[in-house]
Amino acid sequence: MRIKAICEYDGTDYGGWQRQKNAMTIQERIEDALMDLLDVKTPITGAGRTDAGVHARGQVFHFDTDTRIPPEKLAYGVNFRLPDDIRVKETSMVAADFHARFSPVGKWYRYRMYHHPIDSPLMGRYSWHIPYPRLEEEQMERSIQCLVGTHDFLAFSAAGSQMKTSVRTIEEISFRREEDMVLLDIKGDGFLYNMVRIIAGTAADIGRGKLPVDTFATMLETKRRTDGGTTAPGKGLCLMEVYY
Amino acid sequence: MRIKAICEYDGTDYGGWQRQKNAMTIQERIEDALMDLLDVKTPITGAGRTDAGVHARGQVFHFDTDTRIPPEKLAYGVNFRLPDDIRVKETSMVAADFHARFSPVGKWYRYRMYHHPIDSPLMGRYSWHIPYPRLEEEQMERSIQCLVGTHDFLAFSAAGSQMKTSVRTIEEISFRREEDMVLLDIKGDGFLYNMVRIIAGTAADIGRGKLPVDTFATMLETKRRTDGGTTAPGKGLCLMEVYY
Repeated sequence: MRIKAICEYDGTDYGGWQRQKNAMTIQERIEDALMDLLDVKTPITGAGRTDAGVHARGQVFHFDTDTRIPPEKLAYGVNFRLPDDIRVKETSMVAADFHARFSPVGKWYRYRMYHHPIDSPLMGRYSWHIPYPRLEEEQMERSIQCLVGTHDFLAFSAAGSQMKTSVRTIEEISFRREEDMVLLDIKGDGFLYNMVRIIAGTAADIGRGKLPVDTFATMLETKRRTDGGTTAPGKGLCLMEVYY
Repeated sequence: MRIKAICEYDGTDYGGWQRQKNAMTIQERIEDALMDLLDVKTPITGAGRTDAGVHARGQVFHFDTDTRIPPEKLAYGVNFRLPDDIRVKETSMVAADFHARFSPVGKWYRYRMYHHPIDSPLMGRYSWHIPYPRLEEEQMERSIQCLVGTHDFLAFSAAGSQMKTSVRTIEEISFRREEDMVLLDIKGDGFLYNMVRIIAGTAADIGRGKLPVDTFATMLETKRRTDGGTTAPGKGLCLMEVYY
């Protein structure tokens, strides 16, 4: 049977989601836990690859198994074999054609910026520290609205990344300030590699007056990455939810 | 001159605020940093002692110094010598009779409970995990309101703690649920040792139906700690602000 799993992790100590040679990854930890629980090699497929340091509240993956453990109990069995910074929150049986990576209709990412002269020990693991006095959220929010809709986001992808098309649809973008924390929520049908981090970094550059307010419009037009701002660091990013 | 400092810390890896022999503490880290910055032993006095694992967003301390470094720059000098999980957010010169411990007119504590069958890797450091399906926040909130006002809180202190009087005034108590997180905010003129953790633990016991809804009223009347519930763990507690 095919199992859909939703997991949460603190990405601080990992080289990202995808299994790789030179760093411990979330995927490797979960596959090791499954191997220990099910006594057979059980590869998993994630909804998307999160980079080193990126967090997830609702990453999704699937795997196939013929275990007799009831689907909803699998989460507890796996968690027992995982470190505290990774937890499978929910497991359920799904149709055989469910695919964590190809079936999603949308994803929700949150980017957190901590705007204060001095970084926060309590939020430092989960936010990008912006020490500059100026950060005009209203201007950031206004300037970013042109991204909503279906566009060619070529200028919002890391150089050298491969993909069939760079056209994506952003359904919703919202900014919110809670005391010293600025939250950027983005929902869309899919995202290019580094896209949210380039949007967040460019928005911050606009907010501090380093880039003009029409930067996002320019990027959509010229399709040049070099017209945009910095790529915001991974630790401020969190994959909140994957929609199917 | 006398300096007032506001600091934030993640208490996870410390034996609490107060300097002690068998564990690294926040006070020791800050005094070491001051020693390194000012080249002279500089003892600090905190507004209150937070226990092992307890966090602070706005702990306050004071110290005396004859340094020529401008008061507001001291924060940066100290932070440069502190680990990432402790940050002095603000330093300012105050009157010579200012006293971090004796001058406060009030304190605000927040207690976080994470109510979900499976603990949260992203919030686990800063909250108490409540895995029980039932947690009636409305009942918790109603039952706790009798604590607001001036009362003898003898039943809300750890056995064996010493104090002149156990009469304290609670100005405000509020509960709020944000998705899976239940936040308990308490403001008062002062708190007995373990008082907030006993209130939080007893509230949780009421919320899950383990203790009757009139437990807080009974504790005020009998003044017996044994009529209350569990002492909630330190990691869910955060000293938010000290008022002067």
